[in-house]
Amino acid sequence: MWDVLFTNVHLATMVGDSYGEVRDAAIAVRDGDIAWLGPRAQLPDAQALTVHDGGGSWLTPGLIDCHTHIVHAGNRSDEFEARLNGATYEDIARAGGGIMSTVRATRAASADELLWQSLPRVRNLLAEGVTTIEIKSGYGLTLEAEAHMLRVARRLGRELPVRVVTTFLGAHALPPEFAGRADDYIDAVCGMIAPLAAEGLVDAVDAFCERIGFSFEQTERVFRAAQAAGLPVKLHAEQLSDQRGAELTARYRGLSADHLEHLSAQGVAAMAAAGTVAVLLPGAYYFLRDTTPPPVAALREAGVPMAVATDCNPGTSPMTSLLLAMNMACTLWRLTPREALAGATIHAARALGLQDEIGSLEVGKRADFALWRIARPADLSYAIGLNPCRGVVNAGRLRSAAM
Amino acid sequence: MWDVLFTNVHLATMVGDSYGEVRDAAIAVRDGDIAWLGPRAQLPDAQALTVHDGGGSWLTPGLIDCHTHIVHAGNRSDEFEARLNGATYEDIARAGGGIMSTVRATRAASADELLWQSLPRVRNLLAEGVTTIEIKSGYGLTLEAEAHMLRVARRLGRELPVRVVTTFLGAHALPPEFAGRADDYIDAVCGMIAPLAAEGLVDAVDAFCERIGFSFEQTERVFRAAQAAGLPVKLHAEQLSDQRGAELTARYRGLSADHLEHLSAQGVAAMAAAGTVAVLLPGAYYFLRDTTPPPVAALREAGVPMAVATDCNPGTSPMTSLLLAMNMACTLWRLTPREALAGATIHAARALGLQDEIGSLEVGKRADFALWRIARPADLSYAIGLNPCRGVVNAGRLRSAAM
Ligand SMILES: [Zn+2]
Ligand SMILES: [Zn+2]
Repeated sequence: MWDVLFTNVHLATMVGDSYGEVRDAAIAVRDGDIAWLGPRAQLPDAQALTVHDGGGSWLTPGLIDCHTHIVHAGNRSDEFEARLNGATYEDIARAGGGIMSTVRATRAASADELLWQSLPRVRNLLAEGVTTIEIKSGYGLTLEAEAHMLRVARRLGRELPVRVVTTFLGAHALPPEFAGRADDYIDAVCGMIAPLAAEGLVDAVDAFCERIGFSFEQTERVFRAAQAAGLPVKLHAEQLSDQRGAELTARYRGLSADHLEHLSAQGVAAMAAAGTVAVLLPGAYYFLRDTTPPPVAALREAGVPMAVATDCNPGTSPMTSLLLAMNMACTLWRLTPREALAGATIHAARALGLQDEIGSLEVGKRADFALWRIARPADLSYAIGLNPCRGVVNAGRLRSAAM
Repeated sequence: MWDVLFTNVHLATMVGDSYGEVRDAAIAVRDGDIAWLGPRAQLPDAQALTVHDGGGSWLTPGLIDCHTHIVHAGNRSDEFEARLNGATYEDIARAGGGIMSTVRATRAASADELLWQSLPRVRNLLAEGVTTIEIKSGYGLTLEAEAHMLRVARRLGRELPVRVVTTFLGAHALPPEFAGRADDYIDAVCGMIAPLAAEGLVDAVDAFCERIGFSFEQTERVFRAAQAAGLPVKLHAEQLSDQRGAELTARYRGLSADHLEHLSAQGVAAMAAAGTVAVLLPGAYYFLRDTTPPPVAALREAGVPMAVATDCNPGTSPMTSLLLAMNMACTLWRLTPREALAGATIHAARALGLQDEIGSLEVGKRADFALWRIARPADLSYAIGLNPCRGVVNAGRLRSAAM
């Protein structure tokens, strides 16, 4: 006896090197997990409490946005506008702009304000078939303010039909209180890990390894502290310059190295050997008008799994459409539509360490699905700004696409 | 006595060289037109049958997408995918792809099919606050098939809360029936204008002037036929090469010249002198990975009004978000957010010859509004893939944003 059966659908299981297509299929759910799937003609003689006719829709794994800074207060459209009107980065810094303006706004916001301001962004993702979102801290930069952000992230996971995975990103930027004392701030960050983990607020630990962020050595200290707390690591690596961050991440068996525009051949090899996922973030590349693409062909050649995410953040990627990130990965970086969809499903799951639970349609995995009014899976990466989602299923429960 | 009053809103009237902001304002409607607007504190002692509290929303003119090919059957995601998997343009042409695959699908579709296939795309625009859409023919390429497309475009305008402006684009591509006889096809196109106009299907006439389209001389023949029928002209000009199409358009007092990546200084001057609008189409530039931007600084300097549109079409811009086109115009081509919003309102109205009726908030203009949950007007161009529209008003009638 099944709880739910979806029938009259085409499946893109995302198992193997193709879409894993099963035409004219059915998929059954028991206790929130996939209990059976296959061609409708082979449907066993089992019964289901509820049967949904998919009306010829395509059914894919629920999408996974595996890299976001979606919980934050305020936005930076004022800076966007000032820059386009001729202001320099210096002008903006003098006027109190940049990441610190987001830190100030986020620190000042109550939990309810932070939740309400983040909600439209999260809803936009959910309406596009997203069932899992990674959310980073990193606009608090004190123990209490980082905990504040992470608690709101957890609340979003409780109050909305979405699974939230949290990442502690204390090493995102140097707060003004520590100006000129980056090593002292890294001490503080390392000290935040245990209490945040004890409160159940941290699923992984991340850092921004960059000339304008933290050094290789400082990053390694954060990784060691994460390891001591039993937490997996990931890294903002090689976005603006090659800091050998991906190699460092691979050495710590990191889940993912993200951005990677300036990744070296050595970095590619290290990631391949360690099974570290390359999380590609075309929204930031687009918004910053970057011209150095990540080494997609080399990553593909080496068999490094490539994920695709929005990087939703107010400063460098104010993007709340994972479908658009998929289109940008194809258009700007020549991923294939299948690679883009794998990047938002099975490889995104791997970037979160959840590849055994979500990201593909397989018996035993969680029944997180998106249903689409499309002619073929490539449509998801081809269309620009269209949302063909006609329904979303979280652990077997159908919710409407338009929330 | 007014029919409707919107109060507790901030207005971006788009009158003058700023946003024309009126904070804490009200705006009144009588007989579908704007009857009064101003600061709420100066609201006259008039009454309204209905009062809507905008709850602090921003209220702008309804958005206008002034260049689309949104009525068509099928899509070309298969070609998109084939190309990313290594197929050449030749491979695709041999397999029957390219624009002729859209022509075949559109010719074969019944009116209902064509309407239903176009509907999700149109709805996506409407959900973003669009109240007027220009729709071109050009996938029929026979009198009957062009009429078929234009009738569906008109039906969309009757059946949905949107004003539809139609453009006859018979000179879009050379149909196989006329292979090697482009001049004969242009004769046929010129002959289509009168019967289509007689049926009330044509508001303007357009052509594709390009090495791979039609020549300067062929375009001029189409323009003369349009002029003889009393119809205004516009042109796909200078997208891939300089054909002096913008100058030709200016000479015929054309409403707009569109694309313009290869526009010369002479072309800019001719457009400025004639008052021809430059319609910028960043979606096609993005999708085709073009690297030559249109001469935005020269257009700005010369005072040529710049509009921004989606160019929604299956081959070179499968885009159904005007807000995203605005972001691309800013991000890729450095328009300011104010220019982008003017490009989707008042200058888009001018590109359709409707600047006296729509496109700005002024007494006597039609009450087409979009209401937005934003902090400031720049948010509309800043966010990528977010729809902050909270309501749309067509000629004074409120419809919900999520249709
Ligand atoms: Zn990031
Ligand atoms: Zn066009």
